[in-house]
Amino acid sequence: MNGELVDLQAAMAAAIETSHEAWGRTSPNPPVGCVVLDADGVMVGAGPTEPPGGPHAEVIALRAAGERARGGTAVVTLEPCAHTGRTPPCTEALIEAGVARVVYSVEDPNPKAAGGAAVLTEAGIAVESGLLATQAKRGPLRAWLHSMRTGRPHVTWKFASTVDGRVAAADGTSRWISGEESRAEVHELRRHMDAIMVGLGTVATDDPQLTARAADGSLADRQPLRVIVGRGEIPPGARVLDTDAETLHLRTNDPDEVLDELGKCGVVDVLLEGGPRLAGAFVRAGAVHRVLAYIAPKLLGDGSSPLVDTGMSSITQALSLDVEEVTMSGSDVRISAVPAGTGGTSTAPREA
Amino acid sequence: MNGELVDLQAAMAAAIETSHEAWGRTSPNPPVGCVVLDADGVMVGAGPTEPPGGPHAEVIALRAAGERARGGTAVVTLEPCAHTGRTPPCTEALIEAGVARVVYSVEDPNPKAAGGAAVLTEAGIAVESGLLATQAKRGPLRAWLHSMRTGRPHVTWKFASTVDGRVAAADGTSRWISGEESRAEVHELRRHMDAIMVGLGTVATDDPQLTARAADGSLADRQPLRVIVGRGEIPPGARVLDTDAETLHLRTNDPDEVLDELGKCGVVDVLLEGGPRLAGAFVRAGAVHRVLAYIAPKLLGDGSSPLVDTGMSSITQALSLDVEEVTMSGSDVRISAVPAGTGGTSTAPREA
Repeated sequence: MNGELVDLQAAMAAAIETSHEAWGRTSPNPPVGCVVLDADGVMVGAGPTEPPGGPHAEVIALRAAGERARGGTAVVTLEPCAHTGRTPPCTEALIEAGVARVVYSVEDPNPKAAGGAAVLTEAGIAVESGLLATQAKRGPLRAWLHSMRTGRPHVTWKFASTVDGRVAAADGTSRWISGEESRAEVHELRRHMDAIMVGLGTVATDDPQLTARAADGSLADRQPLRVIVGRGEIPPGARVLDTDAETLHLRTNDPDEVLDELGKCGVVDVLLEGGPRLAGAFVRAGAVHRVLAYIAPKLLGDGSSPLVDTGMSSITQALSLDVEEVTMSGSDVRISAVPAGTGGTSTAPREA
Repeated sequence: MNGELVDLQAAMAAAIETSHEAWGRTSPNPPVGCVVLDADGVMVGAGPTEPPGGPHAEVIALRAAGERARGGTAVVTLEPCAHTGRTPPCTEALIEAGVARVVYSVEDPNPKAAGGAAVLTEAGIAVESGLLATQAKRGPLRAWLHSMRTGRPHVTWKFASTVDGRVAAADGTSRWISGEESRAEVHELRRHMDAIMVGLGTVATDDPQLTARAADGSLADRQPLRVIVGRGEIPPGARVLDTDAETLHLRTNDPDEVLDELGKCGVVDVLLEGGPRLAGAFVRAGAVHRVLAYIAPKLLGDGSSPLVDTGMSSITQALSLDVEEVTMSGSDVRISAVPAGTGGTSTAPREA
């Protein structure tokens, strides 16, 4: 799209897309994306935030735009920061570049960095906010926004089940319930996560490696921390003990203790991958912030369920969710949902 | 749309839509819809097949069109019949009306009635087939086509579960797992069915009435046969024994016997509504021809599963499905799927 005339909405969509490159690489900074349009609306620069110490998205995009930024528009997923951390404030860079307008999607909830919009307005720059905010909040910024609001890591619980709600057959086999596309999608998701978490039971039963890999089996360029939760011992020789990624064993079953500990390690974005009992403990503790269900077009009729021991014994106690998005992942149905009232809105998939 | 200029595809979509009025009212005849366009392509008539003894869809639509049918096009969901049953052949009516072209969607598999296309061609009428065939086969014709092909009733297994695959909470409560829109949709579906089937266990546990009702609780104009399966006795005072609809008790647990018996009663279209054990018996017998799952945005973590005792103990034995359609029903995700290779194709719902 660089070099093309784009409208603001397309520019923001491109900024969100660009921010995916930063996702998982910027903690504790937010993974932001920025697109710069020249005075005629032609896209002349784009960029994601670089890892800590490196420039923020605005600076990358402005550098790419050079002089063509003057009189133009900076389109950015998050309100530009107004504070000096390891890098100078982005507001300064935007003012120096001479942009006439800044359009951002989500307000910065970080009290240290906020106030960027006011600084820009004072400098005579037109400022607009809120464009594609729902998409931006569900994108790479999601976990960072959650941790800013709550002070704790964001937990996505992911599972793959059959249509009849089984995550493994009666004999314990579960490879593969979901299809190739879903598995590739999960590996891509892992690559962006700060940590992947399972219980000791899953390590004992499935002996997963919990790494992010490409379709050819090669390790991704970035590996999340492997977190094993539970009071026993990791069996010697377990694959999570190999050298392909770091592993942390937390000798507790208490989700609050787990999240406190992970927060101290700088973990912002956690993928909870199993098993049913650990997921149950997190649901019971109100510590699942997003559910990502891959429903495979299969029937089993026996075997284990994705979630147990939540303490919810009656239908009136069920945890209500808001469906954010329903998509196909290959031949699997992928449902993304969040606890009701925390940001989801139902979607209407197209009929066949 | 009557009186409007429409293209063939829109006309066929309207014919399928019209056929819904016939759905459940025409057995053993097929629920067909027909639209007539005049020579300019303006829609001048439409109609569904009437109950047995009454005119077929083509005749209804041609009557509405009158003289304007001459030189026009008849668009019909099924190949027009060429045989005299309780009514004269439709091919005759089409020839007499002077239509220049007949476009039908699905070929008639009924050896007694087939050959309509050949008769029309001989009479100098242009004949085309296959338009919107996938939609037509999934529409009201589905069960009739199945019964023509197999000689037995078509079974749709419907269930409503939470995202984590529970159809009832640990204390047995299940009202309401699915939302209002889904429940209304199921009542509308029941209205079109020849029979609704549950096991004695469901009667004992839930005491369902198994009638088709409107949102205000009033009985629909048409009630399917209530079929209770199992060797025990229906508890006296059970709601399925009330006078709002007919009830048939089949003292067997064998799906083959059940389907043979229902076939003899002229039942073509069966909705299997529970419970897990009866569904398991039907899945094991290969007697579930469509799965309709309403996945409610809720988590439970305990309670019962939709399907048990299928005899499939390993993931490699799982029954593979083809997803036909994924849609939202209110806030529930509705998945329609069929056993792999029997007609489904994956769909890609729109992203939010």
